[in-house]
Amino acid sequence: MNDKILLGHGSGGRLTRELVRSLFARILGDAGPHSFNDGVLLQVPGTSIVFTTDSFVVSPLFFPGGDIGTLAVCGTVNDLAVSGARPLYLSLGVILEEGLDMELLRRIVASIALTARKAGVRVVCGDTKVVEHGHGDGIFINTAGIGILTHACDEHTVARGDAVIINGTIGDHGMSLLTLRKGFDLHASLSSDCTPLYDLIRSVTAVVPVKWMRDPTRGGVATALHELCEEKPWGIVLRETDLPFHESVSSLSELLGLDPLYSANEGKVLFVVAPEHADAVLALCKMHPDGKNASKIGIVSDVYPGKLVLKTAMDTYRTLGMLNADPLPRIC
Amino acid sequence: MNDKILLGHGSGGRLTRELVRSLFARILGDAGPHSFNDGVLLQVPGTSIVFTTDSFVVSPLFFPGGDIGTLAVCGTVNDLAVSGARPLYLSLGVILEEGLDMELLRRIVASIALTARKAGVRVVCGDTKVVEHGHGDGIFINTAGIGILTHACDEHTVARGDAVIINGTIGDHGMSLLTLRKGFDLHASLSSDCTPLYDLIRSVTAVVPVKWMRDPTRGGVATALHELCEEKPWGIVLRETDLPFHESVSSLSELLGLDPLYSANEGKVLFVVAPEHADAVLALCKMHPDGKNASKIGIVSDVYPGKLVLKTAMDTYRTLGMLNADPLPRIC
Repeated sequence: MNDKILLGHGSGGRLTRELVRSLFARILGDAGPHSFNDGVLLQVPGTSIVFTTDSFVVSPLFFPGGDIGTLAVCGTVNDLAVSGARPLYLSLGVILEEGLDMELLRRIVASIALTARKAGVRVVCGDTKVVEHGHGDGIFINTAGIGILTHACDEHTVARGDAVIINGTIGDHGMSLLTLRKGFDLHASLSSDCTPLYDLIRSVTAVVPVKWMRDPTRGGVATALHELCEEKPWGIVLRETDLPFHESVSSLSELLGLDPLYSANEGKVLFVVAPEHADAVLALCKMHPDGKNASKIGIVSDVYPGKLVLKTAMDTYRTLGMLNADPLPRIC
Repeated sequence: MNDKILLGHGSGGRLTRELVRSLFARILGDAGPHSFNDGVLLQVPGTSIVFTTDSFVVSPLFFPGGDIGTLAVCGTVNDLAVSGARPLYLSLGVILEEGLDMELLRRIVASIALTARKAGVRVVCGDTKVVEHGHGDGIFINTAGIGILTHACDEHTVARGDAVIINGTIGDHGMSLLTLRKGFDLHASLSSDCTPLYDLIRSVTAVVPVKWMRDPTRGGVATALHELCEEKPWGIVLRETDLPFHESVSSLSELLGLDPLYSANEGKVLFVVAPEHADAVLALCKMHPDGKNASKIGIVSDVYPGKLVLKTAMDTYRTLGMLNADPLPRIC
């Protein structure tokens, strides 16, 4: 096989098929499609399915804790998981730039295979396109996902006193990408938190009636919670002293004047639960490898209707808006 | 709203939401999502679903007979239709290049809305990413589609004597793109055949037990039929004199020495049926606006096992292989 991607790999002819068979099919193995026809016939256990899609344009393609392949699986299975679904099937669409190293593509597809197995999903259909050198950027990936509903949240039941819980440190993914791009040398190593979350989420929702959940990716924790509060008769108060941050994220944020509450996460989930369920959620999270640093970070309050508010370490209050512009483009 | 796409439109923050609400949601209307959460809950009538995905990188974005938006809907709903499924739902992932004209995006989303209505599907979830100017090419689109099985083909039932039928002229999409790119001035107007095919296909499969169908897109009629024949104890003989071509496609092919059997189609379907059903399929196609030029173009034969063969106008036989390289990249 060629060691670079050619335009012909996107032709739909012999080269496309060679690429699909000798690279995608071989590396994905049992995590890949059973056949390579136009559409794949799937059996789903039930008639309530959850459907989602996400494209990935992260730069650089490889980063501490993962790569664009890891992200392409995690991003989509986590969207299904926070929608209350067990992820079952993924599609995989790649847009390759002419001249891309075949070896690099192999590594990315290997990450997809590994992460799909970890997430318990199968990549069942795909598509390959190639654009001329200079009209793309290495590889862009789209995944769409199908899951089956296992837990229905209802944000209309959120009420004063409810607890806001996160399963670990905030802002790791965005800050680790920033560190890499700017070439900062940190004392404490920081890596992306990129991981599939269904297993953790299911261990919680199987026991606790979670009212709302969201994975705070682009826009971070602040944007996700701000969206929840908008036009509601209640708001959310976050306590700064309760926010879990990796040491490097804290120092980097201070140094650069960035708010890590707007920094992307790729392995975090926010839960809103009734106050009497907060301890159970924390305990369930802490039993799971992806929830060891779980923390109750805030409370639903009717003092600030429609607003997300930060109670600072100095006992002052600061309103947190949505992310306006992008402090760091192409983080996923 | 800005008149150009900014990097911030991909941030996941305020600008992303503004773009989704004031452009995508407004233009898609009832052909769009009911909500803009991470995953969408769907009811499907049955537990056998068909899933497919396709990315679109066509250049130029607008062409006679359609644009990248028309293609993005047709490509995916047609993959579902030839898999024997009624298309129900689409996802929509767009990768925009910084600086893209907002007006151009509006026109493309309007095409998506129009074509989705024509195809009877709803775009239920989506995602927007933005890459820096010079790292993309205007807009790339991915759609994934979910359908419900209405007709199961079985290519193992294909046998000697079966008829190969196509619903109209061959190679229009690829040749019209070529004409546009090379700046040829044709006497007879040629445009892409891009159209959703489920309605036509269903009118046939509701009556006739179709053994195999395929939409001959990238790689054209020859590549699709070649794939069918491979490793089979039979082959297919196409009769050159029976192949329906638009006048411009014939003259252009002759002029350029290109074989239109390898040129892409976006509104064509190949049927293989038992000989006794051939006339019924032709009659059903001709009753439909997208099948007026339907033609029986070939026959399954055990004289050339595993091969696709063209019987020329001079009664000679020529073997047709798969498309090797891409005569025209980025046609879809």
